[in-house]
Amino acid sequence: MEILLREGKKSDMPSVLELIKELATFENEEDAVEVSVEELLRDGFGERPSFKVFIGEIEGKIVGMALFYERYSTWKGKSIHLEDLIVSDAYRGRGVGKALYTKVMEYAHQRNIKRVSWEVLDWNQVAIDFYESTGAHIVEGWQVVHMNEASLNKFVSNT
Amino acid sequence: MEILLREGKKSDMPSVLELIKELATFENEEDAVEVSVEELLRDGFGERPSFKVFIGEIEGKIVGMALFYERYSTWKGKSIHLEDLIVSDAYRGRGVGKALYTKVMEYAHQRNIKRVSWEVLDWNQVAIDFYESTGAHIVEGWQVVHMNEASLNKFVSNT
Repeated sequence: MEILLREGKKSDMPSVLELIKELATFENEEDAVEVSVEELLRDGFGERPSFKVFIGEIEGKIVGMALFYERYSTWKGKSIHLEDLIVSDAYRGRGVGKALYTKVMEYAHQRNIKRVSWEVLDWNQVAIDFYESTGAHIVEGWQVVHMNEASLNKFVSNT
Repeated sequence: MEILLREGKKSDMPSVLELIKELATFENEEDAVEVSVEELLRDGFGERPSFKVFIGEIEGKIVGMALFYERYSTWKGKSIHLEDLIVSDAYRGRGVGKALYTKVMEYAHQRNIKRVSWEVLDWNQVAIDFYESTGAHIVEGWQVVHMNEASLNKFVSNT
């Protein structure tokens, strides 16, 4: 079963959103997905795309994707952040995830990027073991903080 | 003692790098800072800047800065990431940090950004208490993963 990897194009965005929603549903967070196909098209293409996506296909069907973008480290300079690496449930265990992961690392390496970052759920030991087997490491002691839209509105209107 | 807030310009980059190094030294990580003034100038200005910086001044002296950039959430769309919020040790406790933090939140709010994110050391309870008092929350259960340059080189050359 051959895996085809390629860059995402506009016509892939409905499938990309399906993968995003499949993962969110699995995490019991389907309602948290506010992006639309229109937003993905507006934000991911054109003069200054906000992200880039690699697509994994098996027999012409889109079964996985890696979505990433550039960040900036004040220690290392330009870095790449892997926001989502998703393989559709029915196609797990066939190497699609590893192939997409490797493609992102190759992309970063070709551009002399000094760091690739992402986030993992702390109970997901299978994923952590895989990442560590490739040379990545958990950055101990740091926590992620979010200011969401409702809190942001409230904070700004009170200042 | 009035705090002046303004956008960073090219001539601020030596002071910005000093602040970055002051924080890294405090964290016993001075050697980890690989960026140079030249890189900050190349990456932060021009057609497609990789970051934006707000500067805090007291009596004409640069005493703090907030460095941030855009990210992309597959749930919320465009987001802002606050990479560094630094106030020089001698000027702490005068409200410079809160003023810079507020300016970043206002910037995000004006652009209809649905999330501002950053990272905090898990033992830094003073910072966590402040963030929570503004409506931000710690995202429980997620860990940060890094693939650094040496590991990236090794991984890519082995695949």
